[in-house]
Amino acid sequence: MAIYVGLIACEDRAGLVHEITGVLFKRKFNVTENQEFVDHRQGRFFMRTQFEGQAEAAALAFDLRQFLPKGALCQVRELKARRLVVMASAEPHCLGEILLRHFHHELNAEILAVLSQTNECRDLTARFGLPFEHIPVAGQERHAHEAQILKSIAKYQPDYLVLARYMRIFSEDFVGRFNQSIVNIHHSFLPAFIGKNPYQQAYERGVKIIGATAHFVTKDLDEGPIITQDVIHVDHTCSPEAMARLGQDVEKLVLMRGLNLVLEDRVLIDGNRTIVFS
Amino acid sequence: MAIYVGLIACEDRAGLVHEITGVLFKRKFNVTENQEFVDHRQGRFFMRTQFEGQAEAAALAFDLRQFLPKGALCQVRELKARRLVVMASAEPHCLGEILLRHFHHELNAEILAVLSQTNECRDLTARFGLPFEHIPVAGQERHAHEAQILKSIAKYQPDYLVLARYMRIFSEDFVGRFNQSIVNIHHSFLPAFIGKNPYQQAYERGVKIIGATAHFVTKDLDEGPIITQDVIHVDHTCSPEAMARLGQDVEKLVLMRGLNLVLEDRVLIDGNRTIVFS
Amino acid sequence: MAIYVGLIACEDRAGLVHEITGVLFKRKFNVTENQEFVDHRQGRFFMRTQFEGQAEAAALAFDLRQFLPKGALCQVRELKARRLVVMASAEPHCLGEILLRHFHHELNAEILAVLSQTNECRDLTARFGLPFEHIPVAGQERHAHEAQILKSIAKYQPDYLVLARYMRIFSEDFVGRFNQSIVNIHHSFLPAFIGKNPYQQAYERGVKIIGATAHFVTKDLDEGPIITQDVIHVDHTCSPEAMARLGQDVEKLVLMRGLNLVLEDRVLIDGNRTIVFS
Amino acid sequence: MAIYVGLIACEDRAGLVHEITGVLFKRKFNVTENQEFVDHRQGRFFMRTQFEGQAEAAALAFDLRQFLPKGALCQVRELKARRLVVMASAEPHCLGEILLRHFHHELNAEILAVLSQTNECRDLTARFGLPFEHIPVAGQERHAHEAQILKSIAKYQPDYLVLARYMRIFSEDFVGRFNQSIVNIHHSFLPAFIGKNPYQQAYERGVKIIGATAHFVTKDLDEGPIITQDVIHVDHTCSPEAMARLGQDVEKLVLMRGLNLVLEDRVLIDGNRTIVFS
Repeated sequence: MAIYVGLIACEDRAGLVHEITGVLFKRKFNVTENQEFVDHRQGRFFMRTQFEGQAEAAALAFDLRQFLPKGALCQVRELKARRLVVMASAEPHCLGEILLRHFHHELNAEILAVLSQTNECRDLTARFGLPFEHIPVAGQERHAHEAQILKSIAKYQPDYLVLARYMRIFSEDFVGRFNQSIVNIHHSFLPAFIGKNPYQQAYERGVKIIGATAHFVTKDLDEGPIITQDVIHVDHTCSPEAMARLGQDVEKLVLMRGLNLVLEDRVLIDGNRTIVFS
Repeated sequence: MAIYVGLIACEDRAGLVHEITGVLFKRKFNVTENQEFVDHRQGRFFMRTQFEGQAEAAALAFDLRQFLPKGALCQVRELKARRLVVMASAEPHCLGEILLRHFHHELNAEILAVLSQTNECRDLTARFGLPFEHIPVAGQERHAHEAQILKSIAKYQPDYLVLARYMRIFSEDFVGRFNQSIVNIHHSFLPAFIGKNPYQQAYERGVKIIGATAHFVTKDLDEGPIITQDVIHVDHTCSPEAMARLGQDVEKLVLMRGLNLVLEDRVLIDGNRTIVFS
Repeated sequence: MAIYVGLIACEDRAGLVHEITGVLFKRKFNVTENQEFVDHRQGRFFMRTQFEGQAEAAALAFDLRQFLPKGALCQVRELKARRLVVMASAEPHCLGEILLRHFHHELNAEILAVLSQTNECRDLTARFGLPFEHIPVAGQERHAHEAQILKSIAKYQPDYLVLARYMRIFSEDFVGRFNQSIVNIHHSFLPAFIGKNPYQQAYERGVKIIGATAHFVTKDLDEGPIITQDVIHVDHTCSPEAMARLGQDVEKLVLMRGLNLVLEDRVLIDGNRTIVFS
Repeated sequence: MAIYVGLIACEDRAGLVHEITGVLFKRKFNVTENQEFVDHRQGRFFMRTQFEGQAEAAALAFDLRQFLPKGALCQVRELKARRLVVMASAEPHCLGEILLRHFHHELNAEILAVLSQTNECRDLTARFGLPFEHIPVAGQERHAHEAQILKSIAKYQPDYLVLARYMRIFSEDFVGRFNQSIVNIHHSFLPAFIGKNPYQQAYERGVKIIGATAHFVTKDLDEGPIITQDVIHVDHTCSPEAMARLGQDVEKLVLMRGLNLVLEDRVLIDGNRTIVFS
């Protein structure tokens, strides 16, 4: 018996839940979780349904789509370990957290490789027995560098790219190749402190909270749909360096929470907002 | 057009959501919110459904009950302002919060009266133009005092009693008369610091967090089903009095959150636990 | 016996704490709280000292200033109820919180009057027996309106102006007359969502946290030194209106926390940042 | 140049700060942090002072003790990496966090070895190149098992024992040998849910928050002085197993926060309470 997750987003109309659950009922699936949300401002219906049984996911999605309003999103997937490529940089705390959880089978994913433009995380990755590819920027232009990265990624055929403090901006073309499949952690409570050195920016503004944001990457830097966020309190004794140190904890936890939600198909993207059935 | 809320709790079996939404669909209700939870440990199904239309609530509940498993709880009520009697004591912060929100039409309830065994909150209540009844304990035994309280309450026919830092324990007999209809705020994160002077207890134990708990009152002091809880951080500079002062904020917010959940029929009681469809 | 608070900010050098405490010791004050902070990035020393005894505050400040580095800030004030004028608008929750605490002697301040450009809060203010002045904008230019406000304020000679969701921007000239003495609550976690309709902005950006910021007002809108901030979690079910409703709780608590810190002389302004000795 | 931390706890009297800072000033130390707290309930004075220079710590402590009230605690230590032995069990998340931070030089400590009565964490420890000692309980009595542990520990001469979800209770005799030098993480917000299976207890009580507590171990199980605590929110969908999974994050962060405070000599024990100069 497999577990499936259906995600539906469409124009709202009466009876949708009744009809969708009817299809599942007739096929004798054992529905274990159902969550719905109607956005009355937009007249949009969103649903996540999780069920057990034997299904051909594509066929089931087809059945559901028969009576859903035109233009509906209807995705049915088996809930199994997704394939991940992680991209890191010099900072090891987010990568370390992912590697530890993966090692202890607490992450419902298979990490295929870690890619980085620097070498700092090579040793850490090696200790967990995973491939590490160093793709230096050297004197290359962005396009050439991205071409190398794409070549590496192509070998692994990942479901998602995870940017674990990767710290480089991708081109619109690059992002476009991974439609809604790049998860990033930004080290501020967006939309505050977009871009570089958010802790330095936070220090200069004199804020009393700092935070982190897990979001999907779109062509606009730090502007993609937010999956989850959290903050911690700081005070006047915190230098930018102290904030960065304290912020590591919230960054890695927010990234893991966001990633777990994505891995369980709990996130629907609705324009620049997300529906999160946690 | 009225708004209704249906609350269902029963043994789980396949097809329940399909059937329940079918009844609502056939009657042409406009369902605006649906939330379900299956407790797989107990094999229990819980649902809250909110819908608009013209209904005879009793008839609808009857229809639903036809196909629900035996022993099901099935309650359908119009979502309208509930009738409250508030019981207070010397501490005015929780009562003040309730009175302010009531005054500004932010509480979906009608406050019928404030009862107290002391007089400290009389002036505050009067400023908001509400009846205040002083029911002194004097030299009376608990039974006699409770009889007086019951007599006062009987005049108002409230849906719920709200204990806004009432600070006295009711007899089992008294509690039994208000089945699942007494909401209390306890000034600790239960089950820590049950009973008297929780802030003094917290100080003596040297805790670094203090909290508050909104819960239904049962015959066992501070043991009833918890609706919601929250905490704040404290440190070694906090005396018991400072904790009590800081704790007021979390007490009143937790009480209001808990009360709002109850007033919107978002809380199902399941033994000593609650299902909260927030 | 009176309680005094000394606030010192100056260039750092060895021995400052020894010398400052020496002056207090020789005068036989009973020091009850001392807090220091050295900003090693700037080489700046900050101290708050609270002590009991009989003093002529000005004389004591003079004594301390004798050996403090040139350009030192050195303020000694008796810790007593400050005089406040509160400015409100249509939203009553922040004002209500202030009035309740004032009524119950939980605010170490005397509220002299409530000023507003609208009439919504008149009844609420009257219930607590305080003066309410309606200063309509009508067709006036900002300058003329501010002149009226200034005239009203002049009668009361307040120590601080508290903007309890006042919702109008003051001119640079107006702000300049109340040097570091205007405390505002902004309904977002600054610097996110500066300006109008922060909850609408938050909704559109799809954030998962909303917040509030208590800050001193400077000539730049929402750019003044931050005193304290807090946030709450929200999700996709929250409309802008729901965020605004939920945000009220965090707004009023953050304003009260910030105001209490100011009233106890616990906040030193350092450029656009604050040192908060809580 | 070395960094030193002085910790002082004694009866309060006028002039203490002046005198203590005088000793440091005369010796030409560069004081970088000073924190004091007077517990007016008990008439007790507590101070942490951090300074740079060349000192013989014992001599300096002697000088300070000359004028401190009788019975004063006065400890001066160089602030350097402490020596740790970590004790673990089957659960790897707290140990993993410690090992990662140690590996990345983010923990101001030297981990000498990991001891465990089980073998689950052997591989993880080995990956970070640290000694792992398996000390099985087998059919031994507690006394014999503890004797073996003591023998192992003796080889390492640690400053502190860290119980990273060790899950076994030590005898009073064992605890007595490590006076105020055993730091434990308990997986509940103490004093709620003392002892075994706190998540099961939390589930049964139906709480809406779960937490973790870092504390010093004393002879009474889970009753020692609390260093720091934190909580997260849970709801009715959380089984005991889900709570345990979510709780891992708060456990490991609370342990690290508590441990860092101890490693920087920021914690003074005062009976069953702690003074934490964070």
